[in-house]
Amino acid sequence: METPELEKIFRRILPGDCIVSDGVSLRVYECDGLSAYRQPPRLVLLPEDIGQVKAIMTTCRDHAIPVVGRGGGTSLSGGALPHPDGIVLSLARMNRILEVDPVNRMARVQPGVRNLAISQAVRSLGLYYAPDPSSQIACTIGGNVAENAGGVHCLKYGLTVHNILALKVVTIDGELITLGSESMDVPGFNLLSLMIGSEGMLGMVVEATVRLLPIPESAGVIMGIFDSVRHAGDSVAAIIASGIIPAGIEMMDNPAIRAAEAFVRAGYPVEAEAILLCEVDGSEAEVSQQVEKVESLFRENHAVACRLASDEHERALFWSGRKAAFPAVGRLSPDYYCIDGTIPRKSLGHVLTEIGRLAESYGLRVANVFHAGDGNLHPLILYDANNPGELERTEELGSRILRLCIEVGGTITGEHGVGVEKLGEMCIQFSDEERELFHDIRRCFDPDSLLNPGKAIPTLARCAEHNAMHVHEGQLPFPDLDRF
Amino acid sequence: METPELEKIFRRILPGDCIVSDGVSLRVYECDGLSAYRQPPRLVLLPEDIGQVKAIMTTCRDHAIPVVGRGGGTSLSGGALPHPDGIVLSLARMNRILEVDPVNRMARVQPGVRNLAISQAVRSLGLYYAPDPSSQIACTIGGNVAENAGGVHCLKYGLTVHNILALKVVTIDGELITLGSESMDVPGFNLLSLMIGSEGMLGMVVEATVRLLPIPESAGVIMGIFDSVRHAGDSVAAIIASGIIPAGIEMMDNPAIRAAEAFVRAGYPVEAEAILLCEVDGSEAEVSQQVEKVESLFRENHAVACRLASDEHERALFWSGRKAAFPAVGRLSPDYYCIDGTIPRKSLGHVLTEIGRLAESYGLRVANVFHAGDGNLHPLILYDANNPGELERTEELGSRILRLCIEVGGTITGEHGVGVEKLGEMCIQFSDEERELFHDIRRCFDPDSLLNPGKAIPTLARCAEHNAMHVHEGQLPFPDLDRF
Repeated sequence: METPELEKIFRRILPGDCIVSDGVSLRVYECDGLSAYRQPPRLVLLPEDIGQVKAIMTTCRDHAIPVVGRGGGTSLSGGALPHPDGIVLSLARMNRILEVDPVNRMARVQPGVRNLAISQAVRSLGLYYAPDPSSQIACTIGGNVAENAGGVHCLKYGLTVHNILALKVVTIDGELITLGSESMDVPGFNLLSLMIGSEGMLGMVVEATVRLLPIPESAGVIMGIFDSVRHAGDSVAAIIASGIIPAGIEMMDNPAIRAAEAFVRAGYPVEAEAILLCEVDGSEAEVSQQVEKVESLFRENHAVACRLASDEHERALFWSGRKAAFPAVGRLSPDYYCIDGTIPRKSLGHVLTEIGRLAESYGLRVANVFHAGDGNLHPLILYDANNPGELERTEELGSRILRLCIEVGGTITGEHGVGVEKLGEMCIQFSDEERELFHDIRRCFDPDSLLNPGKAIPTLARCAEHNAMHVHEGQLPFPDLDRF
Repeated sequence: METPELEKIFRRILPGDCIVSDGVSLRVYECDGLSAYRQPPRLVLLPEDIGQVKAIMTTCRDHAIPVVGRGGGTSLSGGALPHPDGIVLSLARMNRILEVDPVNRMARVQPGVRNLAISQAVRSLGLYYAPDPSSQIACTIGGNVAENAGGVHCLKYGLTVHNILALKVVTIDGELITLGSESMDVPGFNLLSLMIGSEGMLGMVVEATVRLLPIPESAGVIMGIFDSVRHAGDSVAAIIASGIIPAGIEMMDNPAIRAAEAFVRAGYPVEAEAILLCEVDGSEAEVSQQVEKVESLFRENHAVACRLASDEHERALFWSGRKAAFPAVGRLSPDYYCIDGTIPRKSLGHVLTEIGRLAESYGLRVANVFHAGDGNLHPLILYDANNPGELERTEELGSRILRLCIEVGGTITGEHGVGVEKLGEMCIQFSDEERELFHDIRRCFDPDSLLNPGKAIPTLARCAEHNAMHVHEGQLPFPDLDRF
């Protein structure tokens, strides 16, 4: 069907101002945070209520139109990249907080509500919503659910999947289903967890009930300064093994420290090989006890120095460098590519050494910033897209880093999802049978694969092609990966 | 196929002592904790390793033999009730702890390991496994995974689904698949959470990686004594709203208090209408701060008195009554039936009043013991199976209580699963479309419905029959439930 005809169909079910069809406006939607991939959609639809979402879904089903959901458009894996034959269903206008229940510590929100807006709305009640992706000022709950977003504090408070109690979802058949409940257990299969992190391939989230937590009475941040990445890694293991559950433990290596310091002047030691920022929270008494313990563990593990944020101002300053690390690294190089993988904590030292070795062999610089407590790496590969072949080399290095994560027993995602970015690595992480099981489950919800097609779960054909490509190159980078 | 022939087939793949076939021994397996339902299996198989489980599964698939998995046999919903045409696959011999990793705070265990055995094995490391169903001395991790078991402390530490990092599962095709990982996030759909609580219908768990937690430095228990159930309910809401997350809050009503006190002499006030036992844990400082706060909240909400367990001995004594409540109630009556449903905390008072009213109209006594913090009710209906019709009346009352849970926005399970017990209520809680989605997902794993057939997810036909039965009775107990 031609686009004007398609537009006519949608004009029957949506007010005119809910449809974006002109070329210039469509360009706004041609990519998300993974801007190396761009594809304008045929139309963007901006429904204002659940009824409109239902009508859009059945229309798309009836005319076999691919549907790509979109929240804040901040995905780093291309989860919201449009499909050339499809429409983008933006939830941006469904952005109201419907109910706050402080007694049961939960809020019911529409999918277009921004992550940070929830915490802002309930702050006066002494509550907040825990998952805090770096993009929390812009990203939406709907997108967080699609990608199972994490953040600095997910070590203690969990990912999105641990903080959502219930979802209302519109299926491709236009049915409204409710998954989960305000209760902990739900009979039947756990479709709530299945939906979270399914990258828009099982249904369109139109409402979320989120868990709220009491704002901790107190928090403290200790900075550990190290002359080797390995000592920093050992400190992380020692803290976890000690029984403390910090709110977050972040690690930065020397290039990241230098970039952040040059950018925001957080007082970071630019000669250090690594710093750790460890935040503990709880009651005053608990925090002071834990701060002391963390400091002594840092010292036992050969920290060159430790600094304690003595007040709220200094605490904010310590974090400012970490929070600005991505844009700071962006100043070192015209482009950078943020990798997202997870490894067992014990492999931190080994993996960092290997990343350094690989980067050198590719002639690329890498700065490392990561959620060390849960082993979630974010190597930032610096490149210049204007140099022919440099993006391709960067992507290849990224892929090799992700394979390294698999090799040490980790996974190819931490909190950014698979999107279009990691389809190739999915072929390595999962067997044909496992991927086929994913496709089978998908067909239960969406038999014609209209929801975000081409994302997250590669087809067998795509993997055959991917592996053939690798064989064509001579050999797999890690021959023992054949067993995956 | 006749049973002797079937036995011959299994003798080819299993050592003789792994097969139970004589009638007397089979009787041991004819029921689980829901002993009102009994059905001897054709054979019981006791594999000793994953290879044998694989061989059993493919043999069952090839010969279309139903397979019912069994752990400790403590299910209260009939999850391990044998199928008349099938075999029982008992994981009792796969009971080794394979690995304890104190640095990453996890343990890898076989499915037949008893829940409590894990905590015992890691106690010297200062660690424990948090979910603590009442049956923890006997129930197994495999069974806990199947039923998504909870316990007294799941308010703070979550259900089984929140404490399992990875599973190895053998499918009905004899394939070994790994779900989850030691990392928080896993790409692809969240099959780990889908498997947990799936009541043995998607695959056979052959290994679990469980999260271990540091044993809290300190714990305190406060008993609040109330002259009305409503005041006790209000206190629970006030504690949760205050920002404290207790390790557990248990409520007992007067019949339960009397029964427990007569049995174990825990020092409970037998005149009280309700008591609350609130446990807080953490550092010494945190516990003493929280104990004070809970006590003041109890008093603000009209507690007649509060008692603080002053030492470990008294703490154990306070809990002894709660822990013995089920057997204690068992002394009041030849039989009792434990109901398991969940309601929003705010409905506690209303629901308890309604339960009392319903019990009276059925001429049955009910004692209430429950995990008040998360709204998980365990009404115990007292009856005498020797009185004709009394079991049937009891089951009907149980069903009406579960419908009441749905009516107030709760669910028909808390931590015991659906099994055979709540098939009828599943017809009310979920629409035809939702149940069909469950069946579709099931078929992805088990196209011929050989894994625990007849449990957890009723067929459309069964629900049609169930609803017809209700219509036959004249009307639904709650006519407005038609909308479910």
